[in-house]
Amino acid sequence: MDKIPILKLGEFLLVTVQVDMHDRLAMTLQDDLTERIVASHARGVLIDISALDIVDSFIGRMLANIAAMSAILDAQTVVVGMRPAVAITLVELGLSLPGVRTALNVEKGMELLRARMREVEPGQTAEGQAAYGEGRVQQADGVE
Amino acid sequence: MDKIPILKLGEFLLVTVQVDMHDRLAMTLQDDLTERIVASHARGVLIDISALDIVDSFIGRMLANIAAMSAILDAQTVVVGMRPAVAITLVELGLSLPGVRTALNVEKGMELLRARMREVEPGQTAEGQAAYGEGRVQQADGVE
Repeated sequence: MDKIPILKLGEFLLVTVQVDMHDRLAMTLQDDLTERIVASHARGVLIDISALDIVDSFIGRMLANIAAMSAILDAQTVVVGMRPAVAITLVELGLSLPGVRTALNVEKGMELLRARMREVEPGQTAEGQAAYGEGRVQQADGVE
Repeated sequence: MDKIPILKLGEFLLVTVQVDMHDRLAMTLQDDLTERIVASHARGVLIDISALDIVDSFIGRMLANIAAMSAILDAQTVVVGMRPAVAITLVELGLSLPGVRTALNVEKGMELLRARMREVEPGQTAEGQAAYGEGRVQQADGVE
């Protein structure tokens, strides 16, 4: 297991994390994902963590990093499928995943991404300026 | 890693196989998948094997079994993302995956499933199609 597959679904990319993340795998995922975003002109990234029993600070940081990198590349990130126990543990650990949006499952994550895309660009696909603002502003607003 | 996550995408289910399959994991996947097909009224199953370097006779049989079980439950199975090397090895081993349809990637697999559904039941998927349409059809049409 040397890399995590990235699936293209329309204008979104889907990553299903199933294995324990370690440094190299996380780095590879970040590299692959950013390359795929650029190559496929993806507008959103869905990261499914329903297979994970534990999300520690390392994975939390990885998710935040991916969200930040994607935002710079004008793609929004939504983490989906988090287990209840994981949410409990995250809060107890004081990890609130800043800057990372979440949704219950892949379908709701896609709805969220589509709603955000419609909201931000009702008509034109603006370039860098608006696109970048989109990525950051809504994180601050925490729109669900 | 005790089970492989099954993601619902409209009327299809998506399974990404990333880890080495062993007996118990394969059994669990079959159980989970058949239950999910029934629970979610799924019409198709997409199995992504792009992470697999090797597909041996065990995995080949598992894929064939899943396809057969799904077919009985009125869901069609498409295996997607097979690596070129895997295809070569399969043929050299004499494993032609009977009864298993394949597609290049998840998107093409979905197109295949949709085409098959339209073929089998022209006109009567209105309800499912509409519900699904909002989510997926626009991706197939290439909104970007």
